Amino acid sequence: MTAPETFLWSGVYSGVKKSGKLDVGLAYSSYPSTVAGVFTANAFSAAPVREARRRLKESRQYHGLVVNSGVANAATGPQGVKNNRDIIREAAKRLGLEPKQVLSASTGHIGEPLPVEAIREALPKAVDSLGDDPTKFARAILTTDTTVKTVTRRVPELGATLTGVAKGAGMIRPCFATMLAFVFFDHPVESEWWQAILEEAVATSFNQITVDGENSTNDTVLAFGADIPNRDPVDEFHSAAGSVDSSLSEVCRTLSREIVADGEGSTRLIEVKVREASDRTVAEAVADSIANSNLLKAALYGGDPNWGRVYSAIGATQYDLDPEAMTISFDGFTVYDPQEEVRETPQELVESMQSPGTHEIMVTLGQGSVEARRLTCDLTEEYVRINADYEP
Amino acid sequence: MTAPETFLWSGVYSGVKKSGKLDVGLAYSSYPSTVAGVFTANAFSAAPVREARRRLKESRQYHGLVVNSGVANAATGPQGVKNNRDIIREAAKRLGLEPKQVLSASTGHIGEPLPVEAIREALPKAVDSLGDDPTKFARAILTTDTTVKTVTRRVPELGATLTGVAKGAGMIRPCFATMLAFVFFDHPVESEWWQAILEEAVATSFNQITVDGENSTNDTVLAFGADIPNRDPVDEFHSAAGSVDSSLSEVCRTLSREIVADGEGSTRLIEVKVREASDRTVAEAVADSIANSNLLKAALYGGDPNWGRVYSAIGATQYDLDPEAMTISFDGFTVYDPQEEVRETPQELVESMQSPGTHEIMVTLGQGSVEARRLTCDLTEEYVRINADYEP
Repeated sequence: MTAPETFLWSGVYSGVKKSGKLDVGLAYSSYPSTVAGVFTANAFSAAPVREARRRLKESRQYHGLVVNSGVANAATGPQGVKNNRDIIREAAKRLGLEPKQVLSASTGHIGEPLPVEAIREALPKAVDSLGDDPTKFARAILTTDTTVKTVTRRVPELGATLTGVAKGAGMIRPCFATMLAFVFFDHPVESEWWQAILEEAVATSFNQITVDGENSTNDTVLAFGADIPNRDPVDEFHSAAGSVDSSLSEVCRTLSREIVADGEGSTRLIEVKVREASDRTVAEAVADSIANSNLLKAALYGGDPNWGRVYSAIGATQYDLDPEAMTISFDGFTVYDPQEEVRETPQELVESMQSPGTHEIMVTLGQGSVEARRLTCDLTEEYVRINADYEP
Repeated sequence: MTAPETFLWSGVYSGVKKSGKLDVGLAYSSYPSTVAGVFTANAFSAAPVREARRRLKESRQYHGLVVNSGVANAATGPQGVKNNRDIIREAAKRLGLEPKQVLSASTGHIGEPLPVEAIREALPKAVDSLGDDPTKFARAILTTDTTVKTVTRRVPELGATLTGVAKGAGMIRPCFATMLAFVFFDHPVESEWWQAILEEAVATSFNQITVDGENSTNDTVLAFGADIPNRDPVDEFHSAAGSVDSSLSEVCRTLSREIVADGEGSTRLIEVKVREASDRTVAEAVADSIANSNLLKAALYGGDPNWGRVYSAIGATQYDLDPEAMTISFDGFTVYDPQEEVRETPQELVESMQSPGTHEIMVTLGQGSVEARRLTCDLTEEYVRINADYEP
């Protein structure tokens, strides 16, 4: 499927990454675009995150996006802010734009100064190689991801297309810790509605995934809607609003699945579903506690439907829950139900858990009707190897 | 150093553990003892924890303690409570005591029924083999621990002795997740003061350690002070109060260090110190976030003084902290200080981090004067292997 028509992308090598892989990505919108953004909750957000958050308050109209991988420009103080602005100014100049029309993002090593000269020198080539295929852009934002992550959905009512590009929480070099996602849509959108549906889409996708419970300094999601003349901007009253909304959510959900599936060293995708909670806080705390349990995730790597570790993780939330009202199932098989004498794990389940792929853990709390979901992966020796591997 | 005089211990094999290792421990106090207790915060505490917590509210005087390893008697419903009482009743009968004079604890597999018959049949041998050496008792409470953990301190002013025995968070079979510690003191103590100093000792020892951030259903600390006639019970006004207090704290701190040092697969002991926090909540949240970061702990296993991951873990607490006011050091070397241009990691530090043993991470927040400490270990491939190793 072809990408949205009114955008151009490129990806080049500047020398920031020692591996020689692409490390500078450029996206250009032929028309000004209305941009919505969601950023990390980490209190020490990186210079490009602080800058983008500040600038989105001033304006929602942008024309370009410059992204580098390899260096996060985090923990870099006032110099980091200056370096980020230098890159934005240079990218704008090369694209024939004003600096205020260009956004930026970074991912990579924390605490290292942004190699401004190298990126600056790579920008002319990045501008020259702009084209209608986002693949090189998608490659240029990766760090230790093993797969390129792009998802495209048509919105037939509008004859328009949404493409999402992401990188995951892959961190082979010390301090890598970033999720980036960019969505491009070749149709005008009303700014406040666009921001609202992006937040909603992020809440049910990127905010429901966890690889290792880490919360990075650089997480950024930006969505561009091109202000193509003579097309009716989509807002909540537009006949295609539902279609755009669900396409955006689906793009975000698919990208978030791909990020977890490509989680460092992972062999299994785990869907955690919590049902019948009394309220949202409890439902999410229980889901988080399960999805972040090292003990459980190591057991899942071993193919073990270890409900005792699920049980313990639920109790660890310290909420007033009733173990006698609760049930736990793996892949549809009930393994804990105090109302029935279900103590033996069925052989069929033991065998199915042996296979990599997607597995489901469902907990019913028996206290209400609120649900929460998390998507996570198993914890493997490879995760430790990747993250212990020091590359000075 | 010899153990406290007025206690007897034994450890026997009942058949609960498939490995054939000792799995039932008995401790007997020749005089009634005053008992203080601290238990897990996990909402789904195991049957023996619920029972001991309830009984300590009714009485502080006990004569005996029966502990089994291999099965935790957690997630076992009303039958688990009944099974626990059966074991207490049987142990009391064999020791010539009333059931109300005996406490119990369990550690091991969650969700499996307590093998009451096997333990019951082993109790006569446990009673017959009671002796003045706690080593077999200390072995009988272990699960995947690789070392026996006992610590003894003299209180010379009283001619008395404190011995602590513990097991750590070693969990090779699915669902093992328990820390147990028992302290025996051959001197009378005043009940409320004894409970108060135990809580204080636990706060600065067992509550400051983490292997994997897991919080078990069975964690239990019990301290016995023997009511030997014609000795003056120690209370807060006793001349030896400070000495008993500091000995108890030291015993608990030493045991907690041994537990972390024997953490599953660990090669390095990591002391996390947070200073200059504005209040306790912030100090502890920052220390916990650092001590539980998989990314950081994998880097430490790789011998990498990765301050970027410390920085990110601090920011992940989402408190209003100022990265410009903060410093981070490893083993006394400052690696992050925005007031100085300290960006290069000293070669001496890189080399020292390569060696296993104890390392220190210190963070100063520059906001106040409150401190917090945590003791943790690195995250290794062996941790994953141990916890992925399914033994049906």
